[in-house]
Parts: sequence; structure tokens; C-alpha cells
Amino acid sequence: MQKRISGALISVFYKDGLEPVVKTLEKLGIKIYSTGGTQKFIEDLNIKCIPVESLTTYPSILGGRVKTLHPSVFGGILGRRDVEQDLQEMAQYKIPEIDLVIVDLYPFEETVAQHASPLFSGDNSGIEKAIIEKIDIGGPSMIRAGAKNFKDVLVIAAKEDYQPLVSLLDAQQGETTLEQRKQFAAKAFEVVMNYDIAISNYFNKALFNPFHEKQGLRYGENPHQQAVFYGDLKNCFNQLHGKEISYNNLVDIDAAIQLISEFDTTTFAIIKHTNVCGVAQRTSVKDSWDAALAGDPESAFGGVLVCNKPIDAATASAINEIFFEVLIAPAFDEDALQILKSKKNRILLQLTGTYAPQIQYKSVLNGTLVQDNDKGNFNEWKEVGGRNATQQEHADLAFANIVCKHLKSNAIALIKNRQLVGKGCGQTSRIDALRQAIEKSKQFKFDLKGAVLASDAFFPFNDCVQLAHAAGIEAFIQPGGSVRDKDSIDYCVQNNLAMVITGMRHFRH
Amino acid sequence: MQKRISGALISVFYKDGLEPVVKTLEKLGIKIYSTGGTQKFIEDLNIKCIPVESLTTYPSILGGRVKTLHPSVFGGILGRRDVEQDLQEMAQYKIPEIDLVIVDLYPFEETVAQHASPLFSGDNSGIEKAIIEKIDIGGPSMIRAGAKNFKDVLVIAAKEDYQPLVSLLDAQQGETTLEQRKQFAAKAFEVVMNYDIAISNYFNKALFNPFHEKQGLRYGENPHQQAVFYGDLKNCFNQLHGKEISYNNLVDIDAAIQLISEFDTTTFAIIKHTNVCGVAQRTSVKDSWDAALAGDPESAFGGVLVCNKPIDAATASAINEIFFEVLIAPAFDEDALQILKSKKNRILLQLTGTYAPQIQYKSVLNGTLVQDNDKGNFNEWKEVGGRNATQQEHADLAFANIVCKHLKSNAIALIKNRQLVGKGCGQTSRIDALRQAIEKSKQFKFDLKGAVLASDAFFPFNDCVQLAHAAGIEAFIQPGGSVRDKDSIDYCVQNNLAMVITGMRHFRH
Repeated sequence: MQKRISGALISVFYKDGLEPVVKTLEKLGIKIYSTGGTQKFIEDLNIKCIPVESLTTYPSILGGRVKTLHPSVFGGILGRRDVEQDLQEMAQYKIPEIDLVIVDLYPFEETVAQHASPLFSGDNSGIEKAIIEKIDIGGPSMIRAGAKNFKDVLVIAAKEDYQPLVSLLDAQQGETTLEQRKQFAAKAFEVVMNYDIAISNYFNKALFNPFHEKQGLRYGENPHQQAVFYGDLKNCFNQLHGKEISYNNLVDIDAAIQLISEFDTTTFAIIKHTNVCGVAQRTSVKDSWDAALAGDPESAFGGVLVCNKPIDAATASAINEIFFEVLIAPAFDEDALQILKSKKNRILLQLTGTYAPQIQYKSVLNGTLVQDNDKGNFNEWKEVGGRNATQQEHADLAFANIVCKHLKSNAIALIKNRQLVGKGCGQTSRIDALRQAIEKSKQFKFDLKGAVLASDAFFPFNDCVQLAHAAGIEAFIQPGGSVRDKDSIDYCVQNNLAMVITGMRHFRH
Repeated sequence: MQKRISGALISVFYKDGLEPVVKTLEKLGIKIYSTGGTQKFIEDLNIKCIPVESLTTYPSILGGRVKTLHPSVFGGILGRRDVEQDLQEMAQYKIPEIDLVIVDLYPFEETVAQHASPLFSGDNSGIEKAIIEKIDIGGPSMIRAGAKNFKDVLVIAAKEDYQPLVSLLDAQQGETTLEQRKQFAAKAFEVVMNYDIAISNYFNKALFNPFHEKQGLRYGENPHQQAVFYGDLKNCFNQLHGKEISYNNLVDIDAAIQLISEFDTTTFAIIKHTNVCGVAQRTSVKDSWDAALAGDPESAFGGVLVCNKPIDAATASAINEIFFEVLIAPAFDEDALQILKSKKNRILLQLTGTYAPQIQYKSVLNGTLVQDNDKGNFNEWKEVGGRNATQQEHADLAFANIVCKHLKSNAIALIKNRQLVGKGCGQTSRIDALRQAIEKSKQFKFDLKGAVLASDAFFPFNDCVQLAHAAGIEAFIQPGGSVRDKDSIDYCVQNNLAMVITGMRHFRH
């Protein structure tokens, strides 16, 4: 169903890129209807256009709030060209055929974003007034009308589509196919949806939009699952090298960045299946890497590596020895980059800015769970053991508490001198997580004497502190909250062990 | 800012529940403007109303596609009552103040739903025509205009709000506060957003809407995280007893139902932190429970229990002995229910119908991953070992493959006679998952001679088959796909062990 465009309505907020569109329409002899600033822009190009007011015989009123909301405009867009009655009415009321609608929307999200987190601030009527004026009424109505009537009308709802439109008009001499019109309609409905999500989120104090910025992925968690990512990764990192990032890479990269964002001093971490399997803090990047790897060299195979300081050549040479999937850092020395690029597939990511997602969601049953991110590490620092933690233990306990927060529940982290020397994670009982952590430390010949232990949730019984103590551990950090907290505390008191209660659980599934 | 309503515009698709609204407006002496079917409904109640056409001096045209899209209507809604220029223009163009907008939307989603999965069917122009006519243009425009101008206007966008509106009008004698108007505006923007999501999803062949059917939760994964659930749990289960369902309960219930949905024969399973820690298939429910519990009685503490057959009194008595959070089943015998209700907090859920979510999503970085659910269990059943699996092993391997799919990666499941006798999950190396599974089976005195092993992903080396063989295991199931598959296969051939390659990985994070 090829269809030639006879009339076009143009009413846009952003004028950049509009010139070639208008010139092409003129060249093809297509009538142009327009409003306000857009009309002036077109006339400044010495191109004729018909003011919408002359169609509606009605001025723009209420400070521009009402200008296109008129039957002459909407009839021109919505009239069905194959319905006799519609054509008669269009003739009777002098409604012209509008076959091309070029309309964009006021910058609502941008206006909201300009103001520092207005979503959760108190009433600031000046800001709110500016934001509310960016709720476009006529624009979405025209876009939706054009998209609804895709059988007869082509709708362009975003400036990204100006260039494709020009190409299409040129190639087909002002004609369009049904298939093309339907594709642009789908895009237009998506534009309006995203606009309405932004507005509703503003009023309802929600923050997320899962429909934004779609990009395809080769497949999902497994090759038989299709997947896409909604979001803009450029705000997180630049990919400097390596193969296409996969679904599972993204999941691990997320875990890696969330962990590393907790630390200011030089830290290196190794992630496998979203869990930290090695992490250490040392004076240099190279020493941090060596200590992180030593924690579990077996698990590091195929891992995602992350550091919060620039990667130098010495570190790059050391890392180069092992097989890994991804390396993330804020910067790479030039010679380090040369060394690391030696393997074609390795993904090298340079962190860009800081991103701080506020909200996370997750599909369960027939719906979605939405929650705040797990921010903060402890509510209090309450020493309840037989003695206070030493200075060295204090530093290790704080570090262990953060590391444990980034392990899947049930989790136990054993730390000695700012190095992960054993961990249990993803366990169905707490004592199993501890057993596993102790096994790990034995496997790699760590002496647990002087190590500290963090638990992501309370100890249901005192078996954990007993078993850990027998292995040499003398300081604990845990949220507390069990009806049997006292059993574990009493054991620490009786055996002169340090125990810190944080009051903040860190389940992570 | 109390404000008295002078004029109301009513234009609704659904008339049920409208009568008390109209009568209250009449009682308060508020002018009513209306259109078409709504106008007839009001006049049939012997209540006076002003046709919108007399405001616009324009008829409804194009088969009703254009009737309210006129400056007299939109000016009446959008005019700012505190801007002198707006008031002058309203007077000049005889635009009445419309302070109350009652508009609902055409049933777009319902129309789509009436047709069997039209989303992915080919072109069916009759169905599509009916669906497209349900894209409302005037309705959303009026709702959005009313909501934008909440400073002066109250907007009601869904029939659920008729009763609250009547109460409010009665209580405040037709006056409304700014706070009330803003609340209804937020709701209205949400209604329009959901409508636009449905339309965009239809055109863009997407299927999900995370904003639907919101319900608050006490808190999120941890007490310091706020959370809500979007979805309708009634389509999954009825809660027969117990405390309010928590965020973590929902996550585990989801894992439990997903697992149990895989089985037709009598199966009982115990879930902890989304992982199966006990599962068995026996002739009776009671025997299934006993065998599931025996697999890991330590982890079962505080678990989520699920069965695919009705719970009888014998089983209820046995279950009653332990502490658990949730029990899910398709039915409960009356005497079983009495026994189980003995503890106040226990959550008892009766499965209703079957739900089969197609798509799952998950927040990572600054966006969202969306993927198909992991459906299917194997692509092929290829025997590659030193011998074929025996009949008994075959049944256990198929069962093990499914159980392993429902464990967090890296995962190993050991099954003997349709009972989970050891599992490793959430591990950062495969050999660790196996070590843990063997440890578990030893802890509860299982003899692994004759047991089978499932792995959720390939064996990177042949160390896993060697270690498992040494523990007594003689049959394996795994997806294959490693560059070193041959090493593991050769080992099985040399040692007369069965090995099945499925070609389908089951990572789960």
C-alpha cells in the first residue's frame, strides 16, 4: 500500500537536524503546517509553511498550553482515507489530510535531571512549576494520533529519525509503505510510553524505567535463552578491548563494580559467578593483585577482575599469566594496555564516572520485586565480646563485613591482614558456609590464627563461633538479631574473643 | 488551597458505579459536561448535562475518533486560574472552567487479551483493526491535561476511584485540597503510563509491564531496604494461614514453585535461600517428605517446603515436628490443615492454577537484563561413556539434571534412588561444588555407591569425574561444550562409567 504524502505537520522542540527534512519536503511539493517556533524556523529558511492557526481559525492560547488541540488538526491526522463518511466530513469541515506528523516532546526527563534529585526533596514550587510546564499535552496527543492511524499516516517522534526520514522520502519520492508506517508507529508509541513513564515516575516517586535504551545480547544466562539489556553502558564504562560482552559478563561486572565502589584505598578483587573469590588491600596495585589471587587461585580461572586504581605494567604482566574474562579499572597505563591486549578476547573496561543505581528489581512468580539497593554497611559498631577488637582486628573486621555483604547468602568471609583467606557462600545453612570457608583456607595453607570472621546474618546457634574458634579465629562481626544471640556472645565472653554487632543484615540472593 | 468544583467533564467507557458520582455532583450543583454514551447515561437518570458539542460548537466526527479534541474542552481543563491572561482568554473564547475530569480509557489490554496471543501471530487484519480502534486518543489527552493542571483540577482516571470521589465530594461539599488533587494526578499519570505501556508492548512485541498491581512489603531483602511487589499473587496461590509474606519468602516461593512445576509424579522439596536442600520422589507424600528431609535435615531448618500433591494428616504430623517458614501444595486435607495451623506464623499456601512467566528481568549496572525463562531440560540425550546408563540410572540422571538446574551456579547434584543425597551450589569453582556435595552426603551417612551426578555446566577438566568416581559415583549428566570434554569422556570410557551429554547448560545466578 504505497501512499504519497500530501501534507505534513511539523511541531518540534528541538530544531537541530530539521533543515534537511524541511528542504526535502519542499522539494517534493509537500504542504507544511506548523506552529510557533518551528514555523519561524521554517520561514527563516525561506520555505513556505501554513500556520496551524489558519487551519483551526483559533489562536494559540493559555501561554501556548493549547494550540494544536483542535478538530482540524486531529481530524487531519485521524481521518480514515478509505472511509467515505470520514472523507465527506473532512471536506465539509475543511480538514486537510495530514499524512506526515513530525512532533517531538518537551524535555521532561532532562528538566527533572537538571535539578539535584528533586524526586525525594521537599516541596520546591519553582522547580516543580518548571517541571510541570514540561508535561506536553498536545505533543503526545498528535504522536499517538499519527501512530494510531499508521494505515494512512507516517509519524516521526524523535529527532534520531530525521535522517532516516530524509533518506526514505528521497528514495521513494515522498511515498511510504504500510510496513514502514507501522514500524515508525511502533517507535512512536515507545517514545510516548517512555515519556509517560518518566512523568509517572516523577509523580509517584519511582525511579526506574526498564524500557530505556535497548540493546540486544547474543543470548541470556544460557545459550537457549534470548536476552536484551535496557540501559546505557557508556555511563558505566568504556570497552577498550575484547569480545562482545555477554549476559553473564554483565552480571559479574555489576557485582564487581558494586564491590569495588565500597573502597577508597587500593583494592583488587576477583569475581566468579557474582561472588568474590579473591580480594585484598595492599599499598601497591601489584601486591593487591598477588594477594587477591593467592586467596583462591583455583577459582580465579575465568574470573572477572576489578581494581580501583590504574593498572601498571608490573600488574599487567602478572595478570597476563592467568586466564580471565574481564578486567575493570579506572585507568590503564599505556604499556599495561599493550601487555593485556595480547589476547584477543579479553574484555578490558575503563570505568567512567560513578554510577549509583538506587533501585533494583527482580522477577518472581507472576510479577516483580522492587527494592532499594543495599546501601550502608552497619547501623552500629557494638563490641559485645570478651574484649574489644584490637586495632588490626578492627580494620580487618570492617573489611570482612563489606566483603561478606557481596557474597551470596548464606555467607561467611574470613579475613587476615586485609586479604580474603577463606569464604563460604550460597549455602543453605550457616554452619556449612563456615565449614566451607575453613576448608578453603586450609586448601591454600592459610594459618587462621589471628584471622577474623564476618557473617552476612546472625548466628542461629553458637556452633559457628565454636567451630571458628577451634580453627584459630578470635574476632567476629555479625548483625545480631537471633533469639539465641546470647549463646554466641556468651561463648565469646568466656573465651576472650572479640565480637562486633552491626545491627545491619546483608542477605544477597 | 481549598478549591470548589464548578464544572465537571465526564466521558467514560465503563458506566458501572457512575450513578452515585453523577447524583452527588447534581446535589452539589456542579455543572456536568458530557459526550455520547455517557451523556445518554446521565440523562437517563433524569439529570441535566451539557453536551460537549454545545461547548465546542463542533460535532463528533470521523466515527467518534474526534469529539473532545477542541480548545474549548482543553482550555477549560488547562487554563491557569491564577494567571490573568488565561482568565481573559477563557472569557473571550467562552471557555468554561472544568475543575473535575472523569475519564477512563478504552479497554485496550482486554481487547488484546480476548484474542489468543495476537502478539506473536501473523497478520490478522480484522483483529488488528478492533485492537487499533481501542487506542484512545482523546481520553489520555484529557486525563493528562487534568493531571498536569492539578493545581486547579481534580482528575479521576479509573472507576476504582468513583467511590473515593463520592466520599470526598460529600465530606468536603465539593471542595478539594491541593494535596488531594496532586495525589489523584499521580494516580492518573500511572493509569496513562500503563495504557501506553500496553500499546507500545503490542506494537513492539514486548510482553512485560513491571508497573502493574503494586503492593507494599514490610521491607526488602534486608530490613534497611524498602520494597514493593508488582504483580497479582492471587493468580499464583491463596494464603490459607500465617504471617505476612516477606520479600525473601517471595523469592524462595518462586524458586519452590519453579522447581515443583517440573514434576508430575509425587515430589517433595525443601528450599533454603532459593536453593533446593532436599528433594525426593516416592509413592506417597509422607515418604517423599521423609526422604527429602533426610537429604539434609540441618539445612531444612526455617525452609520453604513444596509438594505437588495434597498434604494428608500423616505428612502434616511429620512436618509439624520441624520449624519451617512456608508450606506450598495444591491442596490440604482438612485434618492436615488443623495440625499445620497449630503455629500462628507458618505460611500455608494453596497453589491456584498454573502460572508460567515467560520472561525474567534483573537489575545490573545502570539498567536491566531481560531474558526468556530457562525452559526445557536437555537438547539431546547422548550417551558418551564406557557403557549406557542402566534403567535406574537413567531415571536418576533425568531427575538429577532437573534438580541441578534449580541450584545456583556452580552446582553439582548427587541423586540416588530419586533422592537428593548431596549438593554443592553457589560455588566459584566446579570442583568445589563437587567437594561440597560429597561432604554433604558423608555428613548424613549416604553411601554414594550407585549414585549419579548432574552438573549445571561442563567439566573444565577431568578432575570432577575422577573425584566423583573415587566417591562411588558411576553415572554422569552434563551439558558438554568444554574444549576438554574429551578428557572427562575418556575417563568414563576407560572406567566403564555412564555419561550423558545434554547440550543444554543451566547456569542460574
